[in-house]
Amino acid sequence: MDGNPHILITNDDGVDAPGLLALKQALERVGQVTVFAPEHNWSAAGHTKTMHKPLRVNQVKLADGTMAYASSGAPSDCVALAVLGLLPRRPDLVVSGINQGANLGHDITYSGTVAAAMEGVIFGIPAIAVSLDSFESQDFACAAEFAARLAAQVLARGLPPNTLLNVNVPAVPPEEIAGVLVTRLGKRVYRDVLVERQDPRGRNYYWIGGEPPAGVPEEGTDIWALAHNYISVTPLHLDMTDYRLIKELKRWKLDK
Amino acid sequence: MDGNPHILITNDDGVDAPGLLALKQALERVGQVTVFAPEHNWSAAGHTKTMHKPLRVNQVKLADGTMAYASSGAPSDCVALAVLGLLPRRPDLVVSGINQGANLGHDITYSGTVAAAMEGVIFGIPAIAVSLDSFESQDFACAAEFAARLAAQVLARGLPPNTLLNVNVPAVPPEEIAGVLVTRLGKRVYRDVLVERQDPRGRNYYWIGGEPPAGVPEEGTDIWALAHNYISVTPLHLDMTDYRLIKELKRWKLDK
Repeated sequence: MDGNPHILITNDDGVDAPGLLALKQALERVGQVTVFAPEHNWSAAGHTKTMHKPLRVNQVKLADGTMAYASSGAPSDCVALAVLGLLPRRPDLVVSGINQGANLGHDITYSGTVAAAMEGVIFGIPAIAVSLDSFESQDFACAAEFAARLAAQVLARGLPPNTLLNVNVPAVPPEEIAGVLVTRLGKRVYRDVLVERQDPRGRNYYWIGGEPPAGVPEEGTDIWALAHNYISVTPLHLDMTDYRLIKELKRWKLDK
Repeated sequence: MDGNPHILITNDDGVDAPGLLALKQALERVGQVTVFAPEHNWSAAGHTKTMHKPLRVNQVKLADGTMAYASSGAPSDCVALAVLGLLPRRPDLVVSGINQGANLGHDITYSGTVAAAMEGVIFGIPAIAVSLDSFESQDFACAAEFAARLAAQVLARGLPPNTLLNVNVPAVPPEEIAGVLVTRLGKRVYRDVLVERQDPRGRNYYWIGGEPPAGVPEEGTDIWALAHNYISVTPLHLDMTDYRLIKELKRWKLDK
């Protein structure tokens, strides 16, 4: 990467989220940054392409006085709008986050944070998703610092096609961070429950409720790393083909 | 699978879609079916978990006079609601479709049809996503017929954990179907363009427009199979870890 790289920053918590600001300020040391994020929170919105309705884009001011783009679309729409021509310069890297709450195991299939990174990868741009393992902590400094270091490495070394890096940072004081581990996805244990309520007119409605997901802390996984205060870096690829199952399926009688 | 298996049917085109009805009628030959689908179209909505707002569920009548559940949620929400307790009996299989339009290559990361199947898999239930390669054809007979045959095989043989089958059927007369191929995901070529418009008050808005995606018809892929009039069955797994890249990343200097 020659010259001053261009880094596109987005998130799924919305353009006003403090994790976005912390990420942007840290990445300014690595290159030219453009913030292009959703107007509102899109948590657990998955990978979306808004084709059936038009999208608005506004310029807004971040808390540090700098300008950002805010869109009515999802995180992945923000990346698409930016790359398809709303920005004069194509990004060299997409960084999504810092999400309030970890994205571990199967979470990545729901995560708007990860979906924005996927959209970058589909456009051929390397991408990083960054999440802080807390729904409350506003201390994004350590995660932002690590994201900047990792972004510099990705810009220098590149990533293979079809891949992105999914980063999760424990919400502990910097001196308690045990280090950095390269991990595989672990097994999330969802604890969703159906909550039935009645509205004032006596009609039922439902919440998907329950405790936040737990996980199986198997060594080598992202879930283990976080449970032991390590920063977790999981390389993900978008080819979800199960190559081992191809062989097995070829023995099935599918033709008749 | 002993006795009469219970098959949950959903889709992302909405409960009134003709592809859903065709699928349901074909699967009635394989087991007891329950239809639980979104009230409206959710195309390209990705994998969603609706946690920040309540969901409505209504009983509606399908065009053949049978009852179905319709929800205000996304396709994956329908599966979650069904499995978390809205249905008295846990499904043995989730079948999602028949989608109007193929889901090939990277499409699977956007697809609500595939997301509903993923949700089944995350709940530990085998799942199949079925799509017809046409935005216009209303002839779902061949796709429905194949889905029933495949469903019977999956119920008899099972699928490994974390996996689903993604099926795409060419929209050609039955006698022109060349056969069935087990495939890997191919490379989609998206042809999205940014379309800028002005509203009556002079403010810009944007569409993500352009031609439907093309693809690289490399042999062995889902895209090649469809281009040669084969029914494509692609096994997908939810572990998106790039194991090869783990080794490479361990050589990076991530700690400092």
